[in-house]
Amino acid sequence: MYGVAFSPDGKRIVTASADKTARVWDAESGKELRKLEGHTEGALCVAFSPDGKRIVTTSVDDTARVWDAD
Amino acid sequence: MYGVAFSPDGKRIVTASADKTARVWDAESGKELRKLEGHTEGALCVAFSPDGKRIVTTSVDDTARVWDAD
Amino acid sequence: MYGVAFSPDGKRIVTASADKTARVWDAESGKELRKLEGHTEGALCVAFSPDGKRIVTTSVDDTARVWDAD
Amino acid sequence: MYGVAFSPDGKRIVTASADKTARVWDAESGKELRKLEGHTEGALCVAFSPDGKRIVTTSVDDTARVWDAD
Repeated sequence: MYGVAFSPDGKRIVTASADKTARVWDAESGKELRKLEGHTEGALCVAFSPDGKRIVTTSVDDTARVWDAD
Repeated sequence: MYGVAFSPDGKRIVTASADKTARVWDAESGKELRKLEGHTEGALCVAFSPDGKRIVTTSVDDTARVWDAD
Repeated sequence: MYGVAFSPDGKRIVTASADKTARVWDAESGKELRKLEGHTEGALCVAFSPDGKRIVTTSVDDTARVWDAD
Repeated sequence: MYGVAFSPDGKRIVTASADKTARVWDAESGKELRKLEGHTEGALCVAFSPDGKRIVTTSVDDTARVWDAD
Protein backbone atom coordinates (compact mmCIF):
# COMPACT_ATOMS: atom_id res chain seq x y z
CA MET A 1 0.00 0.00 0.00
CA TYR A 2 1.11 3.50 -0.69
CA GLY A 3 -0.82 6.67 0.18
CA VAL A 4 -2.67 6.90 3.46
CA ALA A 5 -4.75 9.49 5.32
CA PHE A 6 -6.89 9.76 8.41
CA SER A 7 -10.36 11.23 8.10
CA PRO A 8 -10.63 14.67 9.74
CA ASP A 9 -12.53 13.15 12.69
CA GLY A 10 -9.86 10.46 13.10
CA LYS A 11 -12.34 7.62 12.93
CA ARG A 12 -11.47 6.27 9.49
CA ILE A 13 -8.34 5.64 7.46
CA VAL A 14 -8.08 5.44 3.68
CA THR A 15 -5.26 3.60 1.92
CA ALA A 16 -4.27 3.24 -1.73
CA SER A 17 -3.10 -0.10 -3.01
CA ALA A 18 -1.27 -1.54 -5.98
CA ASP A 19 -4.23 -3.94 -6.32
CA LYS A 20 -6.12 -0.99 -7.98
CA THR A 21 -8.36 -0.38 -4.97
CA ALA A 22 -8.51 2.12 -2.16
CA ARG A 23 -9.88 0.90 1.15
CA VAL A 24 -11.56 2.65 4.03
CA TRP A 25 -10.82 1.23 7.47
CA ASP A 26 -12.17 1.78 10.96
CA ALA A 27 -9.22 3.43 12.68
CA GLU A 28 -9.94 1.82 16.02
CA SER A 29 -10.92 -1.75 15.15
CA GLY A 30 -8.95 -2.03 11.93
CA LYS A 31 -12.05 -3.44 10.23
CA GLU A 32 -12.36 -2.81 6.50
CA LEU A 33 -15.42 -0.61 5.91
CA ARG A 34 -15.34 -0.09 2.16
CA LYS A 35 -13.38 -1.15 -0.89
CA LEU A 36 -13.27 1.56 -3.55
CA GLU A 37 -13.06 -0.16 -6.92
CA GLY A 38 -12.79 1.46 -10.33
CA HIS A 39 -9.17 2.33 -11.05
CA THR A 40 -7.73 0.20 -13.83
CA GLU A 41 -4.16 0.42 -12.50
CA GLY A 42 -2.70 0.70 -9.03
CA ALA A 43 -3.90 3.48 -6.75
CA LEU A 44 -1.23 5.89 -5.53
CA CYS A 45 -2.28 8.87 -3.45
CA VAL A 46 -5.34 9.62 -1.37
CA ALA A 47 -6.91 12.55 0.46
CA PHE A 48 -10.03 13.16 2.52
CA SER A 49 -12.04 16.30 1.92
CA PRO A 50 -11.93 18.72 4.88
CA ASP A 51 -15.50 17.76 5.86
CA GLY A 52 -14.66 14.04 5.69
CA LYS A 53 -17.45 13.31 3.24
CA ARG A 54 -15.37 12.67 0.14
CA ILE A 55 -12.19 10.82 -0.74
CA VAL A 56 -10.06 11.45 -3.80
CA THR A 57 -7.60 8.93 -5.20
CA THR A 58 -5.02 9.04 -7.97
CA SER A 59 -3.77 6.09 -9.97
CA VAL A 60 -1.16 4.87 -12.40
CA ASP A 61 -4.11 4.76 -14.85
CA ASP A 62 -3.68 8.59 -14.97
CA THR A 63 -7.09 9.36 -13.58
CA ALA A 64 -8.32 10.78 -10.30
CA ARG A 65 -11.57 9.54 -8.79
CA VAL A 66 -13.79 11.10 -6.15
CA TRP A 67 -15.66 8.76 -3.83
CA ASP A 68 -18.38 9.14 -1.24
CA ALA A 69 -16.59 8.41 2.02
CA ASP A 70 -19.61 7.00 3.82
CA MET B 1 -1.76 10.83 -11.77
CA TYR B 2 0.24 11.10 -8.62
CA GLY B 3 -0.11 13.83 -5.98
CA VAL B 4 -3.54 15.07 -5.00
CA ALA B 5 -5.00 17.57 -2.54
CA PHE B 6 -8.33 19.14 -1.67
CA SER B 7 -8.55 22.90 -1.38
CA PRO B 8 -9.06 24.03 2.23
CA ASP B 9 -12.72 24.79 1.50
CA GLY B 10 -13.19 21.33 -0.01
CA LYS B 11 -14.59 22.69 -3.26
CA ARG B 12 -11.65 22.00 -5.54
CA ILE B 13 -9.13 19.22 -6.07
CA VAL B 14 -5.69 19.54 -7.61
CA THR B 15 -3.88 16.60 -9.19
CA ALA B 16 -0.39 16.17 -10.64
CA SER B 17 0.07 14.14 -13.81
CA ALA B 18 2.85 12.45 -15.72
CA ASP B 19 1.60 14.45 -18.75
CA LYS B 20 3.49 17.48 -17.26
CA THR B 21 0.32 19.25 -16.15
CA ALA B 22 -1.51 19.77 -12.91
CA ARG B 23 -5.27 20.08 -13.08
CA VAL B 24 -7.83 21.75 -10.87
CA TRP B 25 -11.20 20.01 -10.61
CA ASP B 26 -14.57 20.89 -9.16
CA ALA B 27 -14.81 18.44 -6.26
CA GLU B 28 -18.55 17.99 -6.62
CA SER B 29 -19.12 17.83 -10.37
CA GLY B 30 -15.74 16.44 -11.34
CA LYS B 31 -15.47 19.11 -14.04
CA GLU B 32 -11.97 20.22 -14.97
CA LEU B 33 -11.60 23.89 -14.03
CA ARG B 34 -8.00 24.63 -14.97
CA LYS B 35 -5.02 22.96 -16.58
CA LEU B 36 -1.73 24.22 -15.15
CA GLU B 37 0.85 23.99 -17.90
CA GLY B 38 4.53 24.85 -17.70
CA HIS B 39 6.46 21.93 -16.26
CA THR B 40 8.73 20.32 -18.84
CA GLU B 41 8.59 16.87 -17.23
CA GLY B 42 5.92 15.04 -15.28
CA ALA B 43 4.36 16.74 -12.25
CA LEU B 44 4.74 14.88 -8.95
CA CYS B 45 3.48 16.53 -5.78
CA VAL B 46 0.95 19.27 -5.13
CA ALA B 47 -0.25 21.41 -2.24
CA PHE B 48 -2.79 24.17 -1.72
CA SER B 49 -1.84 27.20 0.33
CA PRO B 50 -3.75 27.44 3.63
CA ASP B 51 -5.92 30.24 2.22
CA GLY B 52 -6.68 28.23 -0.92
CA LYS B 53 -5.44 30.96 -3.24
CA ARG B 54 -2.25 29.33 -4.43
CA ILE B 55 -1.13 25.91 -5.60
CA VAL B 56 2.43 24.66 -5.64
CA THR B 57 3.60 21.76 -7.78
CA THR B 58 6.87 19.87 -8.06
CA SER B 59 8.13 18.03 -11.12
CA VAL B 60 10.69 15.61 -12.44
CA ASP B 61 12.06 18.71 -14.23
CA ASP B 62 13.48 19.62 -10.79
CA THR B 63 11.50 22.83 -10.45
CA ALA B 64 8.62 23.91 -8.27
CA ARG B 65 5.95 26.23 -9.63
CA VAL B 66 3.44 28.39 -7.82
CA TRP B 67 0.07 28.93 -9.49
CA ASP B 68 -2.91 31.14 -8.86
CA ALA B 69 -5.62 28.68 -7.82
CA ASP B 70 -8.52 30.70 -9.17
CA MET C 1 13.54 7.27 4.66
CA TYR C 2 10.44 8.21 2.81
CA GLY C 3 7.18 9.46 4.38
CA VAL C 4 7.31 11.89 7.27
CA ALA C 5 4.82 13.78 9.44
CA PHE C 6 4.77 15.96 12.53
CA SER C 7 2.37 15.11 15.32
CA PRO C 8 -0.45 17.67 15.60
CA ASP C 9 1.19 19.16 18.71
CA GLY C 10 4.52 19.45 16.88
CA LYS C 11 6.42 17.55 19.54
CA ARG C 12 7.01 14.30 17.68
CA ILE C 13 7.94 13.24 14.17
CA VAL C 14 7.22 9.91 12.52
CA THR C 15 9.25 8.59 9.60
CA ALA C 16 8.91 5.52 7.36
CA SER C 17 12.01 3.61 6.35
CA ALA C 18 13.07 1.06 3.79
CA ASP C 19 14.37 -0.98 6.78
CA LYS C 20 10.70 -2.03 7.36
CA THR C 21 10.28 0.16 10.44
CA ALA C 22 8.66 3.45 11.24
CA ARG C 23 10.26 5.55 13.94
CA VAL C 24 8.93 8.20 16.27
CA TRP C 25 11.33 10.99 17.16
CA ASP C 26 11.35 13.85 19.62
CA ALA C 27 11.09 16.86 17.32
CA GLU C 28 13.26 19.07 19.51
CA SER C 29 16.05 16.76 20.68
CA GLY C 30 16.03 14.40 17.70
CA LYS C 31 16.03 11.47 20.10
CA GLU C 32 14.38 8.27 18.84
CA LEU C 33 11.35 7.55 21.04
CA ARG C 34 9.91 4.43 19.46
CA LYS C 35 10.67 1.97 16.69
CA LEU C 36 7.49 0.56 15.13
CA GLU C 37 8.27 -2.94 13.94
CA GLY C 38 5.97 -5.33 12.13
CA HIS C 39 5.97 -4.56 8.42
CA THR C 40 7.63 -7.30 6.40
CA GLU C 41 8.78 -4.96 3.62
CA GLY C 42 9.82 -1.32 3.56
CA ALA C 43 7.50 1.28 5.06
CA LEU C 44 6.33 4.01 2.71
CA CYS C 45 3.81 6.55 3.95
CA VAL C 46 2.81 7.71 7.41
CA ALA C 47 0.14 9.85 9.05
CA PHE C 48 -0.77 10.92 12.57
CA SER C 49 -4.39 10.84 13.65
CA PRO C 50 -5.82 14.33 14.27
CA ASP C 51 -5.66 13.77 18.05
CA GLY C 52 -2.04 12.60 17.84
CA LYS C 53 -2.76 9.31 19.57
CA ARG C 54 -2.41 6.99 16.59
CA ILE C 55 -0.04 6.55 13.68
CA VAL C 56 -0.83 4.72 10.46
CA THR C 57 1.84 3.37 8.12
CA THR C 58 1.72 1.75 4.70
CA SER C 59 4.29 -0.64 3.29
CA VAL C 60 5.51 -2.41 0.20
CA ASP C 61 4.16 -5.53 1.98
CA ASP C 62 0.71 -4.20 0.88
CA THR C 63 -0.61 -3.76 4.40
CA ALA C 64 -1.40 -0.74 6.52
CA ARG C 65 -0.76 -0.82 10.25
CA VAL C 66 -2.14 1.35 13.01
CA TRP C 67 0.12 2.04 16.00
CA ASP C 68 -0.34 3.62 19.39
CA ALA C 69 1.70 6.82 19.12
CA ASP C 70 2.60 7.00 22.80
CA MET D 1 11.78 18.09 -7.06
CA TYR D 2 9.57 15.80 -5.11
CA GLY D 3 7.91 16.61 -1.75
CA VAL D 4 6.46 20.06 -1.18
CA ALA D 5 4.59 21.87 1.59
CA PHE D 6 3.35 25.33 2.44
CA SER D 7 4.19 26.76 5.83
CA PRO D 8 1.12 27.02 8.09
CA ASP D 9 1.00 30.80 7.53
CA GLY D 10 1.19 30.30 3.76
CA LYS D 11 4.17 32.61 3.36
CA ARG D 12 6.85 30.02 2.64
CA ILE D 13 7.16 26.83 0.63
CA VAL D 14 9.61 24.01 1.22
CA THR D 15 10.65 21.60 -1.52
CA ALA D 16 12.80 18.45 -1.56
CA SER D 17 15.17 17.87 -4.43
CA ALA D 18 17.16 15.04 -5.96
CA ASP D 19 20.17 17.39 -5.67
CA LYS D 20 20.28 16.42 -1.93
CA THR D 21 18.95 19.77 -0.74
CA ALA D 22 15.66 21.10 0.50
CA ARG D 23 14.86 24.72 -0.29
CA VAL D 24 12.66 27.28 1.38
CA TRP D 25 10.96 29.76 -0.93
CA ASP D 26 8.97 32.93 -0.48
CA ALA D 27 5.52 31.84 -1.62
CA GLU D 28 4.65 35.19 -3.12
CA SER D 29 7.86 36.31 -4.85
CA GLY D 30 9.27 32.85 -5.56
CA LYS D 31 12.61 33.99 -4.17
CA GLU D 32 14.77 31.28 -2.62
CA LEU D 33 15.17 32.03 1.10
CA ARG D 34 17.25 29.11 2.32
CA LYS D 35 19.01 26.05 1.00
CA LEU D 36 19.01 23.21 3.53
CA GLU D 37 22.17 21.19 2.94
CA GLY D 38 23.26 18.05 4.74
CA HIS D 39 21.59 15.03 3.19
CA THR D 40 24.07 12.81 1.38
CA GLU D 41 21.49 11.49 -1.10
CA GLY D 42 18.40 13.02 -2.69
CA ALA D 43 15.76 14.53 -0.43
CA LEU D 44 12.29 13.00 -0.73
CA CYS D 45 9.56 14.19 1.61
CA VAL D 46 9.11 17.35 3.66
CA ALA D 47 6.82 18.72 6.35
CA PHE D 48 6.48 21.93 8.33
CA SER D 49 5.83 21.74 12.05
CA PRO D 50 2.37 23.04 13.02
CA ASP D 51 3.92 26.24 14.41
CA GLY D 52 5.94 26.79 11.23
CA LYS D 53 9.24 26.96 13.08
CA ARG D 54 10.71 23.65 12.02
CA ILE D 55 11.02 21.64 8.83
CA VAL D 56 11.66 17.93 8.63
CA THR D 57 13.05 16.21 5.54
CA THR D 58 13.63 12.58 4.60
CA SER D 59 16.17 11.30 2.13
CA VAL D 60 17.34 8.32 0.13
CA ASP D 61 20.30 8.42 2.57
CA ASP D 62 17.84 6.83 5.06
CA THR D 63 17.98 9.71 7.52
CA ALA D 64 15.53 12.37 8.54
CA ARG D 65 16.74 15.87 9.40
CA VAL D 66 15.07 18.62 11.35
CA TRP D 67 15.82 22.20 10.33
CA ASP D 68 15.11 25.61 11.75
CA ALA D 69 12.64 27.09 9.27
CA ASP D 70 13.69 30.70 9.80
